[in-house]
Formats: sequence, C-alpha cells, structure tokens
Amino acid sequence: MKVGIIGGTGYTGVELLRLLARHPGVSVQTITSREQAGRPVGELFPSLEDVHQLVFTDPAEANLSGCDFVFSAAPNGVAMRHAPRLLDAGVRLIDLSADFRIRDIDTWERWYGMSHDCPELVDQAVYGLTEVCRSRLGSARLVANPGCYPTCIQLGFLPLLECGLVEPDSLIADAKSGVSGAGRKADLGTAFSEISDSFRAYAASGHRHLPEIMQGLGDVSNQPVDLVFTPHLLPIVRGIHATLYARLNAHAQAMSVETLHGAYTDRYDQEPFVRVLVPGAHPDTRSVRGSNCCRMALHRPQGGRIITILCVEDNLVKGAAGQAIQNMNVMAGFRETEGLEGIALVP
Amino acid sequence: MKVGIIGGTGYTGVELLRLLARHPGVSVQTITSREQAGRPVGELFPSLEDVHQLVFTDPAEANLSGCDFVFSAAPNGVAMRHAPRLLDAGVRLIDLSADFRIRDIDTWERWYGMSHDCPELVDQAVYGLTEVCRSRLGSARLVANPGCYPTCIQLGFLPLLECGLVEPDSLIADAKSGVSGAGRKADLGTAFSEISDSFRAYAASGHRHLPEIMQGLGDVSNQPVDLVFTPHLLPIVRGIHATLYARLNAHAQAMSVETLHGAYTDRYDQEPFVRVLVPGAHPDTRSVRGSNCCRMALHRPQGGRIITILCVEDNLVKGAAGQAIQNMNVMAGFRETEGLEGIALVP
Amino acid sequence: MKVGIIGGTGYTGVELLRLLARHPGVSVQTITSREQAGRPVGELFPSLEDVHQLVFTDPAEANLSGCDFVFSAAPNGVAMRHAPRLLDAGVRLIDLSADFRIRDIDTWERWYGMSHDCPELVDQAVYGLTEVCRSRLGSARLVANPGCYPTCIQLGFLPLLECGLVEPDSLIADAKSGVSGAGRKADLGTAFSEISDSFRAYAASGHRHLPEIMQGLGDVSNQPVDLVFTPHLLPIVRGIHATLYARLNAHAQAMSVETLHGAYTDRYDQEPFVRVLVPGAHPDTRSVRGSNCCRMALHRPQGGRIITILCVEDNLVKGAAGQAIQNMNVMAGFRETEGLEGIALVP
Amino acid sequence: MKVGIIGGTGYTGVELLRLLARHPGVSVQTITSREQAGRPVGELFPSLEDVHQLVFTDPAEANLSGCDFVFSAAPNGVAMRHAPRLLDAGVRLIDLSADFRIRDIDTWERWYGMSHDCPELVDQAVYGLTEVCRSRLGSARLVANPGCYPTCIQLGFLPLLECGLVEPDSLIADAKSGVSGAGRKADLGTAFSEISDSFRAYAASGHRHLPEIMQGLGDVSNQPVDLVFTPHLLPIVRGIHATLYARLNAHAQAMSVETLHGAYTDRYDQEPFVRVLVPGAHPDTRSVRGSNCCRMALHRPQGGRIITILCVEDNLVKGAAGQAIQNMNVMAGFRETEGLEGIALVP
Repeated sequence: MKVGIIGGTGYTGVELLRLLARHPGVSVQTITSREQAGRPVGELFPSLEDVHQLVFTDPAEANLSGCDFVFSAAPNGVAMRHAPRLLDAGVRLIDLSADFRIRDIDTWERWYGMSHDCPELVDQAVYGLTEVCRSRLGSARLVANPGCYPTCIQLGFLPLLECGLVEPDSLIADAKSGVSGAGRKADLGTAFSEISDSFRAYAASGHRHLPEIMQGLGDVSNQPVDLVFTPHLLPIVRGIHATLYARLNAHAQAMSVETLHGAYTDRYDQEPFVRVLVPGAHPDTRSVRGSNCCRMALHRPQGGRIITILCVEDNLVKGAAGQAIQNMNVMAGFRETEGLEGIALVP
Repeated sequence: MKVGIIGGTGYTGVELLRLLARHPGVSVQTITSREQAGRPVGELFPSLEDVHQLVFTDPAEANLSGCDFVFSAAPNGVAMRHAPRLLDAGVRLIDLSADFRIRDIDTWERWYGMSHDCPELVDQAVYGLTEVCRSRLGSARLVANPGCYPTCIQLGFLPLLECGLVEPDSLIADAKSGVSGAGRKADLGTAFSEISDSFRAYAASGHRHLPEIMQGLGDVSNQPVDLVFTPHLLPIVRGIHATLYARLNAHAQAMSVETLHGAYTDRYDQEPFVRVLVPGAHPDTRSVRGSNCCRMALHRPQGGRIITILCVEDNLVKGAAGQAIQNMNVMAGFRETEGLEGIALVP
Repeated sequence: MKVGIIGGTGYTGVELLRLLARHPGVSVQTITSREQAGRPVGELFPSLEDVHQLVFTDPAEANLSGCDFVFSAAPNGVAMRHAPRLLDAGVRLIDLSADFRIRDIDTWERWYGMSHDCPELVDQAVYGLTEVCRSRLGSARLVANPGCYPTCIQLGFLPLLECGLVEPDSLIADAKSGVSGAGRKADLGTAFSEISDSFRAYAASGHRHLPEIMQGLGDVSNQPVDLVFTPHLLPIVRGIHATLYARLNAHAQAMSVETLHGAYTDRYDQEPFVRVLVPGAHPDTRSVRGSNCCRMALHRPQGGRIITILCVEDNLVKGAAGQAIQNMNVMAGFRETEGLEGIALVP
Repeated sequence: MKVGIIGGTGYTGVELLRLLARHPGVSVQTITSREQAGRPVGELFPSLEDVHQLVFTDPAEANLSGCDFVFSAAPNGVAMRHAPRLLDAGVRLIDLSADFRIRDIDTWERWYGMSHDCPELVDQAVYGLTEVCRSRLGSARLVANPGCYPTCIQLGFLPLLECGLVEPDSLIADAKSGVSGAGRKADLGTAFSEISDSFRAYAASGHRHLPEIMQGLGDVSNQPVDLVFTPHLLPIVRGIHATLYARLNAHAQAMSVETLHGAYTDRYDQEPFVRVLVPGAHPDTRSVRGSNCCRMALHRPQGGRIITILCVEDNLVKGAAGQAIQNMNVMAGFRETEGLEGIALVP
C-alpha cells in the first residue's frame, strides 16, 4: 500500500518513517515539507538515510491523492486544509494533529485559536484511540489520532469509568512528559540550558488537551466528568508518565484492590498494546521507550478512598506515530501489531 | 560558636559544610564518620578542600560534647543513640533524620522498622519547620529537622488549612524529587543507567514521609486530615517539585483566585525563605538550586472546585541542610538568613 | 538454531535478548545467572516480558552444551572457565568479555589481574572485529568479541594504517562513553547523583582496552604502533564518541582531504555496518542509538599535518551485543545483517 | 564603585549579576538590553528577583558613562561600538566578547566575519587571562576577557610552554563544553531534544577560539606554536573539560612525572584560582560548578613521550563572568578573590 506523509519534518514525522520502514505492507511514496522541499530525508535525519530514498516535496506538488493512506504530521491547522480534497480522492487520512479530535467546533476554535476550515468533516472523523474505536476503524476514511497526554490519561481512567467505580467529577491527572512532545523547533523555552537538570509544570490553569480528554472520558461515563489536568515538562527526550487519581464511589470502596485490578485486566488483557502490571508496581517510562505499549499499575494508598493509577507510554509512539500506524493496520486489514513489534530500548 | 556534624559523608553533610563554611558566626570543629575516619574532608569532597581543614573522626572519639550545636546528618537510627548524652552535656542537637519527627512512637516504629531508643525525648523535640515553629526555637535543645518532601508539601498546604479553605480530607500531593534525595550510596536503583532519560513513581502505596506530613497538617487543621502522597524520582540531581491538590470548601469556592492568593501572601510575605509568585506562575526547580528558598504559585483550573499549588525547593537546602541552619540561626539568636543568602545557580 | 547466554543479567545480556528476540534464525534456549536463578527474565527486565518465556538458570544446571551457539555476557574470568567444556561439546562460543582477546598471555594477566585458565585456547580464538576477521569466522569455534572502545577506535584508524598514511606511533584516541559501558551494578562512582550534569576522564594513565587496541592496530600496520588512549565518562546512557588524531606522514601530507577520504570509502563502502560521512561532518552518538552501525567523518584542521577522525557507535550494540550477533550471522551462514536492521531511535 | 552591564540578558549577564550581588565593593547601576528594555531583571531571571532592583534599560539611554566599570556581556560586535565613547568618558571597560582579544585585525575579521570598528583600540586592550596579565591590569582601561575554551586550554598548556618542555607544534586540545556556552537563545541545534542523551563534536575543522589560543600560547613560547583544537558539545548545563596532549621534547622526556608536575605547582601554587591536583587525578566538571576555580591534573601514559593534562572550569565563571570580576578586582585594587569565594555546588 502506498503511504504519504504531510509535514514530515517534525519528531512524529521521523517516528512514522522509522516505524513504516519496517512495515512489510506499506511503502512510503511521498513526504511533504514546504521549508525542506528538495532535500533528501536522510540529510535532515541521518538515522534514516539508508531506509528511505525519499526527498521532501512541496505540498503543492506532492502526489498525496495517489496514496492509499496519508498521515498528517503537520501542526494544527494544516490537515483540515488538505482533508476535503484528499477524502474526495479516496485517500484515507490519519491526522496526528488536533484538527478533527473535538466534536464541538466552538470548543475547538476557542482552545486552538483559529477557525475550523471544514467543520462538516469533524462528525465523520473517528477519534483514533484504538482500544476504544476499533470497531469503527474498518470503514473509517478520516481518523483523528489522539494527543499524547490524552492517550495515556484516557487509557488509565477507562476501566474505572466504564465500570462505574469512581466519582467521575473527582478526576485528577498529574502528567509529566519528555520534551520531544513540544516538537522539533527553535524555542527558548525548550532550549537545553533551560530544561536540563530542572523541572516545572506548565499550562496548569488549562491545557488544550483538556477538552479532548473530557470528551473521551465523557463518552464512557454515564455521569458528567470533571478533570483537573496538570502537565509538566520532564528533562528526558521521550516518555509520558501520568499519575491519575480518582475517588472510588461507595460501591467500589468495598472492593479489594484485586477486584479493582480485575476491572483493568478484564478490559485490557486482550489488548496487544496495553499491559496491566501487578497492583503496587511502578512502571517507568524507559520500559516503553520506542515501543507502542502503554503500561499501568493500580495503587490504593492506605486502603482509602482514592485509587491511584500509574500509566506510562512513549509520547512519540503510542502517543502519536505508533498509534497512527496501529489505526492504519486495523483500517487496512493488516495484523494490528504489524510494524509495531519493536522492543523497548533499555537501558 | 562551635559546631559538630555526626555522619557527615552524605549529601546533606556536604551541604552543611558548604553552607557553614560561609557562616560568619560558626566554626565547624568536628565531623564524624566511622567508615572514613582519618580521611581529610577535602579528599572525599574536592569542592571543599580549601574551606575546611577537617578530618573525619570516629564518632567514639569525636568531641561532640564540646560543641554548642551538633547537626546529625546520619541515617535514621543514629541521632537517637547520641541524643541523651549530648543533651546532658548541654549541646543543642539538630537532627536531620526522622528520629524525633513523629510524636506517636508506635507510628514511627512501624514506618521506620526499628525500636526507638529514647522515646521520652521525642516530646521535647521541636519539629523544625521554621515558618511554623519559630517561636519555640529560642528555647529548644532538640530539633527534629523535617524531611525534604514534608517541608515542601506542608508549606504548600499550610495557608489553606490554617484559614479553613479546603476539605482537609481531600488532599493530594504529587511530588517529584531529584535523586540526591536518595542519598550518597551504591545502589542499583539509583545507578545512572537506571535513572537517566527515564521517570517513575515509587512508594506510591505508602511512603515514610506520609505520617510526618499528616501530623504537621493535622496540627494546623481543625478537622481530620487525609492525604494521598505519591513520590516520583526525577532524573535531576537536586530539586523537589510538589503539585498539590485540594478541594475548596463551600465557603472558599465563592472566593476569587486573588483572595485565595491573599491567604498565601498574608501568611508568607514576611517570611525570608518563602516566595509566593503571582497566581498562574510555574516555578521551576532550578530557580532555587542551591538556595534556601521555597517558591510557590496558585492555580484554580477552570475556576472549579480544585485549587492547585505548585511548590519548589532544593531538597538538600530548604529540604535539609539549609533549614537546619535556618533553625540554628533562630536558636542562637543570629539573623535568620545568616549564611543562607546564596543566590540560586541558574542556568 | 539454539542459542544460550551465560551471565545474562547485565546490559549486554539485555541487548542480546532484545536483538535475538527479532532474529528469525535463532531461538534462545537458556540464559544463566547464579544470583537470579529461578527468576523469569521478564521480571528483571520488564521490557522483555513478552518476548522471551525464559527463566534464569543456574550455570551448573543449564544445558549450554546442547546449544549451537553460546554467548558469554558474563564479567571477565567466567568464559574461560566454561570454554574448554563447551568447545569439546561442539558448541561455538562467542565471548563478549576480554578473556580471549589478547594473544600475549602475560599482557592479559597483567592488565586483568588474574591467571588465565586456558591459555592454549587463546590462539584458537578469532578476534571478532567483523570488518577485519570476516574470512576467518566461517570456521571459527571461539570468537573473542572486541571491547566497546576498541571497536570504535580500531575502525576509525584502520584505513590510515592499512594504507600507510600516518606515523603509527603518533596515535591519540580521546574517547567518551555513556555509562552503560560500566555495567549494570551498584557502584558509587556510577550513581546518578555522581554522574549527572558532570563530566570527567578516568583511567587516563592506562586503561585495560589499551593492549587490545594496540594489538589490533599493530596487526594492520607494518611499523610499530604507539597509542595514547584517554577514556571519559559521558552523562548519557548509551553511545561512544571517539575523537582520533594521527600525524599524516610525508607521503600523505601531499594528499587532499578527498583522497584521504577515499581511503575510507574504499575500505568501508561495502561494509553494511560502517558508514563514512562526507568530510567535515560531525556524527552524533544518538544517530546510532540502538543500531549496529558505526559512523565516522574525517577532518584535516587547517590543512595541517594532523588528521582527525570522529567516530560514533552504540557501546551496547556495535560495541558488544550487536557485533556478537553480526559475528554469529557470518559463522552460521545467515545474512550478515539478520536481526540487526533496527533503525536508530532518534530523537 | 559603580558598575554597568551592556547586553545583560544572556547567561554571562545572569552570572555577572549573581556574582556582583554578593560583591561588597560594587553596586550595579545599570544593565542594558534593547529587546527587554523596561522589564525588571527579576522578571526575566526569577533567581535574581530579590537581589537587584534593576530594570533593563535601552542602551541608547543608559548612563554607562557614569559608571566606574562597565562589563560588556553582549555578542561579538557590540562592545567595539561602545568602546571609544566609554573610554573617553573615563570608564574602564571589561569586554566579555571577542572584539578586542586578537591583535591581528585581519585574522579577527576573517574569523568573526565583520569589520572591526575601532582597530586602534585593540593594541590598548589587555588580554584578560589574569594568571598571565596581572601586572598589566592595574593601569588597564580596556580588558579583552578571554573566551571560555581559551581560558582552560591556555592555563593547561602554560607551564609546559613557559618552561620549554614540549614540542610547541604538537599541541592537541580535545575540549568538551556544557551547552550554556552556546548562549541563551532559541536554536534548533541546542534544543533539549537534540542534545540530551547524545554527544558530538562541532567546528572540528576550525573554531573561532583557535587564533585566540594560538596567540596566547605563542606569546609564552619561544618557538612557533601549532594546535589542533576540537570542541564538543556535552549534554550538561555548565562546565568545560579540556583534555590536552603535547609531545615532551628530548630534554623533558628524561624527567619524572613529579618533576613535570613541579613545573605546574611552581607556576600555580600562589594562584588563588588554579588548583593543580596530584598527578594521575581526574578532575570532574562538577567540582568547579559555580566556582571561579580551574582544576587540573597531569598524566604521562605508559611513561611515554606524550603528556596529558586534564583541565576543568565552569564556562560561565572562570570562563567568563568570574574571570571578568577577577580582572576588575585587580584593576580596582580589591582583594583578587572578592566576591568570588563561592564554593562549588556539589552534588
């Protein structure tokens, strides 16, 4: 199958290329970039110089319409400009940006600070959290790939909400991400000398991923969801660790940790890319470095009312490129794990 | 004034020496270590070779009783063996370990896994969170210097509890610490190749600092306090960042962020070592690297029911050695900031 | 083919398992460890829990003799105890330690501080720098896999010595390695708080890899070789960067950089795992992170008498486990790149 | 004394402010920045908010002429525009840029890519390597503060050249620097995700500091000097480690390491900011973090012809702001160590 990539000069673009290079079912035909048009991919990304004989092409000239699948790895606001044309041409589009993630257009426009170019397409989009939307992918033509934090946080809370075990308005997500999540760019805030050997929160009063997470959790809860989400910047390259808190409701407070854990294993045991560890475990971000897996563990501190879930993923893989390919696999009828079997790089 | 240090071969020992070297009112007379007895301090710690002509002395031979103040920087279980003798000799003891922090002996013995040698002294001890205990330091002979996490977390929650603004049983402290907090030792869990470029939580089901924090917060709350405390290991050398969450009670929910912020400025504006930033700020750990200051900022996400406090300190300074010297200054009648005016090392 | 691993609880053991898990031609049958006997591999190394259903076995009980190939990933001094028995049983042994690398037994014993158990086997051993020994691997039964620094440094100097372009007694290798090269162990010197945000040299007066490098370079030079080798500890997990210096002889001084570069492309263009970059390039260690490739570039500062070669590899892959598998591939008649086609993980 | 700072928004500006805040003899009157004019210093640099009530002033309006000393912490090309006017006004100018470092104007213009505005002032300038120029500082009105790499490398080689112990055309400086040396700026090359957990050389074919180092070493050698200088980027915030190599001449080859070491202790024992460690030691960059000290140690590998010197400094302190203040102290008649007695921050 022929694959194209829009806006491939960022870190998710590099990851798509790395993972697709070893995917036996696809061939990357074209990759676009206005700034780098004409430049070989291997020149910008030396680690890829032997695996793709690709040259960046100006989006205006790239033959994206001739592809079976197109991934948009461009910043917010770009995929929505290409989408109508591509969908009309029969291309199946997987967008790694936020353009099609949020069903309420006003909410999207408010958080993302721009007008939406094709709101009518948003309803068509399948929100691509594979463990939730799998059955709808087979016929999907437009997939809104989730954000990195939303993937981890939703997977961590899902069983609790689906099984009605917590007060849905008590959710707290304290999340920490490696800096590659901020993108490949020249920015003083993510300069090495500003980040290394330090740590801080950011957007603690409101981050754009909040409405996306609330939408997803609201979909699986029969009561209104309320969430406090605090992102932080970790001085590491890749990895997200979300520490999630929720109040058990009266019904669930009577359960043992093993029973609560059972809700997780029931939900995820069949999932190839979610691993539920034994209760009390402490997953580390490096255990999924370069892998598409999300690992989590439950804690019930002091046997009290709060349940804590520790959840890790690689923000560029399960948080972006890996999940996009996982969705493509399901859409195309490949084995869901095709091209995603890389083992985490540890140490 | 003559000062002695018990167990000075760890990171808090190094910090005490660094800070005391520039304290005009004291002279370090003796520093003990069984393992390193006979070895010059500058040989173990090259950064100190010009500032102290000290040699490590075996504790059995050190003239600690001849000191005005003794700091114990030894592991838990050591200070309590020296305390009776030293107090009898008229020495004023500041213990950086947990030996005298917890008033309930059973609780202490359970969490620390050993019998207490002199429980009768625990009542005498002043719990050395300076911003709370200042008035009792003048006559104190035994000070239990707080743990690193407890310092940051209590300072962050204090105004909310003192002013009765939150539900005291809704507290969550998601804390992240640099690795020096684990001590100077050979341990696979804190080996560079196990920690670097990674992140994880630890002791998420219960950490020894929990009873200490609950005791301190309970002292300032007129209702029972309940706290979930999740520590994490940051791949940085120094620094603690605590992200604190609490539910505003009905009374406080009606307040603006500025009013809530006012509770903090009222409480801390006169404090030389606590800085309350403008609401919505994001303090970073490097802004207090090597400094005795604790910096914090309030957030009220979505104007909702949860108040978030971001709070940073240097775990070796305000979280240990710096606070110990701050206490000594008050006890001895020095300017409280004497020897603690170092500016954070940034970048 | 059946493969066994002796001493598999270190970082090279983890890497062997990661790489062999995706090698279609082999199956890992047994992996030994005295300390961890009985423990599942996935328990010690969570990243591997899905890929190997192996349990560590005590070496005394492991069926190593039933394997076609055995890799020894144990510390120095262990392989030599197993070797006679295994070779007699028809096993082909690839030793990742130094036990069989140095032909002069006195030199080995002096640098490694122990007596050699089976010096008679050393002559049989093929020194496993694949790009040099390939033709001898087909019939080899015992391979001494090179050290991490020696691999990088020899590959970097080889064309200059083989083509007689430099004064062989003028060689300087200034090498910097990530900390995983020191091994997976509890050691104060490699504790996170001792290494992070710092840098130093070590063994600058003489490192055990020196005689190995001199032996290898001496083999390809028709004049005596002299080398100054200074290792340094980099605060990164993986990667070696060697900056190599040599004096061009009179004959070579007249050559252009392109001609000198030609000596490198002639030597390495056909090599699957050596990449010669354009002159003047600056390879970074991350460009080969997790990959078996060695990348290098030439510089001739000020057009002067010194030629500088910048050379990078992943110390755990091309510097250990990857090269061991590369050797096994040649020995077994597999494609040389089988199982080693992983793309570097960047960023 | 009144001090002004030109271009104070970079890392050397922050360091000057941190160090000068604790200097009893000076008061910082004015600090300029075009971009940040009107903004309080403490807003840009929170760690300084309590120590200076300064506001950045536009250079056009700042009263620099009313200062006794002015430090220029601006990029290359700025100090030379202010110098004539300031010197005429009787200000003593210490320039931290390269504008006045190189006596040969053609060389400077070639390496720095701009025309020199006031070449006639270059002869007046004293090259501010304090350990060399001390006697000329008392009457100096214009000081060209050395670059970070040149400070470390010249101090390391000095005794060998002054005592005629090496072949001056055999010098190799393999230097590694923390990223703060690249400046406080938005640049993809120094973005966290591009640097962390990686290592590479840069400018290996020729770096601007080369002519400066050769000029300084040429001044103390009676034979022509030739140097190969390879800089590298370390994934740490501060610190330079230079590994220096030189060939001992016939005369020196007969000397013991102790005698060679004696040349260093003779030269530096009286120096407050140079520490010569015992032969065979390995200084680490953290041992001088935040300190004005330069620490070094000699090695003579295999008792051979090459002498290796390991030399560390903090690039922002002894490599920039600290040395500038050290020079000011001598110029003003203060104790040379005034304000520079901070102990390195370790761990």
